[in-house]
This record gives sequence, C-alpha cells and structure tokens, in this order.
Amino acid sequence: METVLRSKGREVTIGADRPFVVIGERINPTGRKKLAAALEAHRLEVVQELAQAQVEAGADVLDVNVGAAGVDERALLPEAVRLVAEIVDVPLCLDSADREALAAALAVAPGKPLVNSVSGEPASLERVLPVVREFGAAVIGLTLDEGGIPPDAEKRLAIAGRILEYAARIGIPAENVIIDPLVLTVGADSQAARVTLETIELVRREFGVNLSLGASNVSFGLPERPTINQAFLTLGIAAGATCAITDPAKLTPTIRATDLLLGRDPYAARFIQHWRSRASRGVDQA
Amino acid sequence: METVLRSKGREVTIGADRPFVVIGERINPTGRKKLAAALEAHRLEVVQELAQAQVEAGADVLDVNVGAAGVDERALLPEAVRLVAEIVDVPLCLDSADREALAAALAVAPGKPLVNSVSGEPASLERVLPVVREFGAAVIGLTLDEGGIPPDAEKRLAIAGRILEYAARIGIPAENVIIDPLVLTVGADSQAARVTLETIELVRREFGVNLSLGASNVSFGLPERPTINQAFLTLGIAAGATCAITDPAKLTPTIRATDLLLGRDPYAARFIQHWRSRASRGVDQA
Repeated sequence: METVLRSKGREVTIGADRPFVVIGERINPTGRKKLAAALEAHRLEVVQELAQAQVEAGADVLDVNVGAAGVDERALLPEAVRLVAEIVDVPLCLDSADREALAAALAVAPGKPLVNSVSGEPASLERVLPVVREFGAAVIGLTLDEGGIPPDAEKRLAIAGRILEYAARIGIPAENVIIDPLVLTVGADSQAARVTLETIELVRREFGVNLSLGASNVSFGLPERPTINQAFLTLGIAAGATCAITDPAKLTPTIRATDLLLGRDPYAARFIQHWRSRASRGVDQA
Repeated sequence: METVLRSKGREVTIGADRPFVVIGERINPTGRKKLAAALEAHRLEVVQELAQAQVEAGADVLDVNVGAAGVDERALLPEAVRLVAEIVDVPLCLDSADREALAAALAVAPGKPLVNSVSGEPASLERVLPVVREFGAAVIGLTLDEGGIPPDAEKRLAIAGRILEYAARIGIPAENVIIDPLVLTVGADSQAARVTLETIELVRREFGVNLSLGASNVSFGLPERPTINQAFLTLGIAAGATCAITDPAKLTPTIRATDLLLGRDPYAARFIQHWRSRASRGVDQA
C-alpha cells in the first residue's frame, strides 16, 4: 500500500518497495528552549532556517509543531506552515493536539499534508479524523488508547485496527493512515524495542499499511544514544517500517545505508548522492 | 545449536539466544604493512599488543593470522598462538591456508579453538577438515567452491550443506561448523547484501548451525564505510548471524546496541558495562 503526500510541486510516496522516507522532526519546541523562545517572540525565521537545514540534510517531509507555552497555535501553526512552504517545496506533517489549529493549518498547507497524530482513544478519533477527512490529508495513528501504550504487540495491533476501522467508516482510505507502533526506552524494559519490531511485522502482515518510527525514545536514559538510535532504525526498516520522524542530520546516512543493504538503491545512487551533498556542505563524514 | 570454544580458563558459547560473539580480526597482516613488517622481523610483541587491545575493546575470541611474505607460517603461527594465549585468556581462531601451519598451531593452542577456514571445494574439505577433527576444534565454512562465490542464496545454502555433510562423515558434529555466508560489496552489486542476509536465513532454517559475518567487505569502494558496516552488522544479527570476524574497537558498540534492542541484554547490563569500559579507557563516545 502506498501513501502519497504532496507539496506545491513535489510528490513523496511512502511504500514498502520505495526508499525509506525521512520526516524531519526538528521544528518542534518540545525540549528545545531556544526554539520555544523564538516561537513565543514570533521570530519565525528560525522555523524557516530549520526547514531549509533539514531538507538539505535529507528530509523528504517536514514535521511542523509550534506548541509551546505562550503560543497561540491556532494563529501560529498556519503562519509557520505558510512560511515553511514558502522556503522549501516538500510535503508537511502538521503536528498539533489542537483540532482548530490543525484545521487552520490544513486550510493553508499546499498539496496533501500528513497530520500528526491520532490515537486509538475515542475522543482522539472523533476530534482528529473528521478534519483529516475534510481536507483529504493523511494521518499518523499512534498505537495507544485510554489505557496507555500496551506492553504487547497483539494489543497494539488491535488499536491499529480500531484506528483503521474508524478511518474507513468516515471515508479515509487505509493508504492515508500511517501507523506508529511506538517505542519505549530499552533502558527501562529490555523487551521494549522487540515489542515495537514485532508490532511492525504484525501490522504490516495484517493491514499492509505504512509504518512510521520515532527513532530516539528508544535510547532515552542510556549512554551512546546515537549508536542505539541508528541500530534501532536499521532494525525497524528491516522489519517493515517505511518512514520515520527523526533528525535527518543525524540519521539520514544510516537510513540510506540500510536502503542500500536491503537492495533498494540500484548502483548505490541515492547513497552516494547523499554523501556528496554532505561533503559539499562540509559535514563531517563518518 | 551451540558452538562451544575454550581458552585455558574461559568458555565462549556461540548460539542464537546468546549475546553475539565478536571475533577480533586485527591480528592479520593482509593489507596492514606495519604488522607484516613486524611479523617478518619476528617482533611478536606487536601481536600481543593487538591481542590485549582487542580484548579490552570487547573481543570474545581472537583471530590469529600471520600469513605474510617472508614469513614461515609453520613456525610463526604456533609461536604467535603461544604468545597470545600467554597474554589474554580468550579462545583463538587459527587462520591459515596452510594445513601444516594449522596442525602446528592446533597442537599448542589451549582449550578448543576455531579454525579459519574451509570452503566447499573438495581440495579444501580434504585438506582442512581432517586436522580439525583430529584436534577436536570447530571450523568456519565459507560458502564458496571451485566455481567461486555463487550469486544466489540457494547455491550458497547447497555449499553449506556439502561442508556439513563432509564434516559429519568424518566425525565433526554440525555444532562445530560455523557457516560464513560471505558478502560482496554493495558498491558493485546492489543486491549483494540482500543475498547474504537471505543465505543467513536459509542456512539457519535448514541446518540450525551458527553463522559468522565478515563485516567490512560489504562497503568496499564506497564512502562512509563505518555507517554501512554498522547497518550491515545490525541487519545480519537480526537475520540470524551469531558471530562476526570484525574490528571490536569499531563495531562492538553497534553489536551491543543490537543485542540490547533484540531483547538479549536484560537491564542493558552488557551494553552499559561496555560503555563504562570504553569510558574508563578514554575512548571517544559516539
């Protein structure tokens, strides 16, 4: 199954036989004080700089989240979307818990964006999916519900099923739903990543939909986080994930290498092109 | 199936539900001019230093290869084995194409070593396996024969079968044979790694034996080799490889991270222990 996203001039297709899609995570003030302060002060050129830098580093899609204290998301999210779309021509992933902010951003986003995110909670399904349907967008479905994140893969699969079912009922086709199997830190539970990888395999087998990874929670609280995040991303891609919300500057080389090793990059063309682009920007080579 | 190797005082078990075993590759003069010169000059303290450094960096087993121009392997291999066994207490992997050198080294190696390697060629089977049998050692079997390295997984599986069959016939049990599925560079053939990963899965399913990876050929001729090698090792471990001949200083963090993510490291104990050991030696952290 393929999920097509669009910007003004470009189309990005997410699918199992396609190159893995990188959704740049850095336009998000959570845990980033400087960005939060810039958003509060309405200095949106910072957002444009982050957009540019991430696309240069290999992002195919950009997540846009402006949720910080003292920020009116309903005004700022559409404004940020407009400014990002002005400077880079990639599909956007509109990231907010506020339905009105999402609707306002969807109204100004060019092409066909992604919405981040809906969960399996009834209140979330009812709040988010109708607006996704109204604007013909795609959406990320998190495998959690009112009971939290289930510790086992079968229950996460069941939540994915409920999200897909609700979506279908109101007219959102399965190809417009990307499931995020969620991952907890392996520092707290050594089975945490295994459960996520198992969920990826189950959801892909059962529903055939696209799967998105968050690539940094897994290493929370542990040393050598980049090594863990890289290995997790490689395992996730091999298990069947097709996109990730991540930092392209840190993880695009690993993603390109994994695509290459899985036989999805004829003549190593994308791998070498990415390396040349890094080299030309003077980025340290591994 | 589990392969047990022994040094004087330690036992290392290679198996699917065990931590991945690192066989240090650096005592090998191929492509290392300084080591080749040291061996020719009979300066074997260099070999002892490499042994010590690799065990500190996480090697569970050490490959010992002294094959260089101007070196009499039949005298030098047993001598190197004796000196390495004096300074570190880990099982050894005796690496030579010369049967007499192997026999001389097997005669002095403590415990139960590994022999590197036999191929599916009749001449190789006849030359190497009887001496492996005689000393009760284990052996690495390469999936190549007189026709070279087959381009597809099924033919490599067939060669693995022939090696295991010959071994069984002369009294070497399957658990003492570790199959190396071989890997060519993805720079020349974008399906090269995929075929190796497929061979791992086929051999494990068909014969249940242990599988060893060489972790650096795959990236030959490409930029950012460490990133490719790390991703390949992660994919290989996930596919079912149980040990690798590799540089522990470069790849142990990725190996420990992959074991952790696959749920094989309760409380992240081995991962954290390795990080502490690196930190205490002042090794740059990722």
